[in-house]
Amino acid sequence: MREFLSGCRDALGPAHVLVDPDLTAAYATDWTGRFRGAAPAVVRPGSTAEVAEVVALARRHRVALVPQGGNTGLVGGGVPLAGEVVVSLGRLDRLDVDGTAAQATAGAGVPLATLQAAAGAAGLAFGVDLGARDSATVGGMVATNAGGIHVLRHGAMRAQVVGVEAVLGTGAVVSRLAGLVKDNTGYDLAQLLCGSEGTLGIITAARLRLVARPGQVVTALVGTGSVAAAVEAASALRRDVAGLAALELMDGPSLRLVADHLAAPPPVAPDAGAYLLVEVDAPADPLPALAAALDGRPGVLDAAVATERAERARLWRWREAHSEVGATLGEVHKLDVTLPVAALAAFCAEVVACVERARPGATTLLFGHVGDGNVHVNVVGPPADDTAIDDVVLGLVVERGGSISAEHGIGTAKKAWLARDRSPAEVEAMRAIKRALDPDGILNPNVLFA
Amino acid sequence: MREFLSGCRDALGPAHVLVDPDLTAAYATDWTGRFRGAAPAVVRPGSTAEVAEVVALARRHRVALVPQGGNTGLVGGGVPLAGEVVVSLGRLDRLDVDGTAAQATAGAGVPLATLQAAAGAAGLAFGVDLGARDSATVGGMVATNAGGIHVLRHGAMRAQVVGVEAVLGTGAVVSRLAGLVKDNTGYDLAQLLCGSEGTLGIITAARLRLVARPGQVVTALVGTGSVAAAVEAASALRRDVAGLAALELMDGPSLRLVADHLAAPPPVAPDAGAYLLVEVDAPADPLPALAAALDGRPGVLDAAVATERAERARLWRWREAHSEVGATLGEVHKLDVTLPVAALAAFCAEVVACVERARPGATTLLFGHVGDGNVHVNVVGPPADDTAIDDVVLGLVVERGGSISAEHGIGTAKKAWLARDRSPAEVEAMRAIKRALDPDGILNPNVLFA
Repeated sequence: MREFLSGCRDALGPAHVLVDPDLTAAYATDWTGRFRGAAPAVVRPGSTAEVAEVVALARRHRVALVPQGGNTGLVGGGVPLAGEVVVSLGRLDRLDVDGTAAQATAGAGVPLATLQAAAGAAGLAFGVDLGARDSATVGGMVATNAGGIHVLRHGAMRAQVVGVEAVLGTGAVVSRLAGLVKDNTGYDLAQLLCGSEGTLGIITAARLRLVARPGQVVTALVGTGSVAAAVEAASALRRDVAGLAALELMDGPSLRLVADHLAAPPPVAPDAGAYLLVEVDAPADPLPALAAALDGRPGVLDAAVATERAERARLWRWREAHSEVGATLGEVHKLDVTLPVAALAAFCAEVVACVERARPGATTLLFGHVGDGNVHVNVVGPPADDTAIDDVVLGLVVERGGSISAEHGIGTAKKAWLARDRSPAEVEAMRAIKRALDPDGILNPNVLFA
Repeated sequence: MREFLSGCRDALGPAHVLVDPDLTAAYATDWTGRFRGAAPAVVRPGSTAEVAEVVALARRHRVALVPQGGNTGLVGGGVPLAGEVVVSLGRLDRLDVDGTAAQATAGAGVPLATLQAAAGAAGLAFGVDLGARDSATVGGMVATNAGGIHVLRHGAMRAQVVGVEAVLGTGAVVSRLAGLVKDNTGYDLAQLLCGSEGTLGIITAARLRLVARPGQVVTALVGTGSVAAAVEAASALRRDVAGLAALELMDGPSLRLVADHLAAPPPVAPDAGAYLLVEVDAPADPLPALAAALDGRPGVLDAAVATERAERARLWRWREAHSEVGATLGEVHKLDVTLPVAALAAFCAEVVACVERARPGATTLLFGHVGDGNVHVNVVGPPADDTAIDDVVLGLVVERGGSISAEHGIGTAKKAWLARDRSPAEVEAMRAIKRALDPDGILNPNVLFA
């Protein structure tokens, strides 16, 4: 370690090799405080070449590294939980917008909000948005294939990535930042690195596509007779309404808890079995197509519609408050999962019953991105260290053919679960790829694999 | 080989192990006749398990395999040019459409046209379309990340793939067909296999997203003062017009050759420096937004607009005839390349001059998917075996930071070029991945790497 740090000081300058625990502590704990580690050092390279020097030194001296962006993850994937050295990418903050190509080149350390603002200044937009936009950075968002509320419309980070620059675990630098949308020249290393959680390479920059700015926007909160009716209505909307920008599900009991929290009655169909939050963004008025798709549809009870920004925000509040209402009731187990769409409605009923059986009196909030089959299962009541309840929920997800990580990845939090979600053949293929690109296992060795 | 074939007969039944040269010949030559090989045998497995048995036998007996779909490639990637055994996937033709999820599960052998028809019957559409739709199959389209005219709107095959089932070179079967749109549980093997040209695994099935059917469609042929003006106008359209479905470039001299071929004057701006073919597909009338984006734009000379199907087809004819006009003039060197958008206009001028210097009197047709930076450079005049002219064009592409393969991949045709387009670090990373998933090098060993 001493030689490694000495090499880092030579390569980066002493100011960018932090060893004082007062300085490193902020990098060793995640933002929720759930994952607390300790780092012998934090290094802050200022260029891709400096990242390559750090990786070469780590290989030579067999030092484990954890790449870290905005530290907004939820699964402990960017925190030094086993004494790793943190490689903080915040100094890689170069940002160039190419309006003609409708693309941007962003350093790993560029915050999402900065990218969004720069895209907006060029008359364009970035396709991904999420709550942590002021802190989350491009490198971490690519490494975890971050999603958010517009995946339905523009896809997750994976769909925005045109190319990346990265330092592989071998120390080799790969770079494809020219913005070639069509480029079939061998394996797509950018797509492989996307979602690899810092275990194959350290992403130093990305070339990202930009999208057209929203046109006319309509938001609707729709009450339905049941979760199943909501899922069916969501499918019909996907088929019949162009320009869907969001399609969110909230089950009825969850929304009524939100109503208690907000001290306001539901704005529509107060006893509905479930609710959909629908947003459409189209060049011309999207309301007629939306109304036609909903009017008279079996299982659709009523809808509240808004076109003005403030009114739309009021409808969105009903969806967004789901994330916070749990914490007002107790400890929250946040499980973010995906189900096959055909299995979604049955899963929602089943998971509530399973939790009630396992922990009588616990509250299960269900909401999420139904357009992507993605449900947030928030269980309130059992203490934080009662991980058996997480097992109950994730076990049901696996049984029903779902994914235990819709967003955020596996990290350290779910690595014991990887082998239950993915087959031995898949895990072995992943391990073979890991050995190929990180032969000494120096990159985020405590993440992904058990 | 004898033991391998004997094992295949046991596993697949003798009827699906072809060794008669009269029967294998059709599998040994590509559809253009440019690539002529010979196969000691063609095996036709009828299930993923049978493909796995074939791969296991090939590993045991060290037999090289070439996976083959509809055999519509252009770079010799699916043809047994070094005496490989052909694995024909045509019998894997299962197709299920899941309307609720807006997804389909398709066997590798399902032709694109069959998939399109099934999606249409469910009130949906498939996002990729290309001329070879009756022959090209899902497996080959995923393996080569096929593109076509709607990449601008829906992305290439990569963007349609939700999951794949495949037999890796190790013989292991990986399968993720549940249709999980959000699934961040380790490396995305589907994305890695997409575009890997059969060198890492044999794709046996894919889960594919379906998209909404087109709404109201407007097509316009726009004359511009120059290629640079056309590129600028294309950027403005991408920024300002929602629902762009196609954005095609033709340079002026090329379109006038098409006019001679069709014996008709250009339908708009007969002396334009370049032309754009624009198609917009939106829920409500897209014409006002299109007109607003074009009217008074510097460099835009005139536009012909069509909304009826037959009229639209007449405008498309001007673009489509570019693919055939070359053959009426002589041997055609078809080079399908991508440039960074910012370099596109200069490249178009430069490549014409370069070809003229190298082969005075040759004709260079330029057209393609400008929305993706993708240009087809068709050089007519030099004989087919004059590959030095291909070198001139591809060399210029690499110099200008482009990609030597926009679509179709590297195959055998361009493998000598891979190391000029991709850096040594990238090629070595690809080779390491190849060794990880195909340790004995039995899958398409003569493709991709020189």
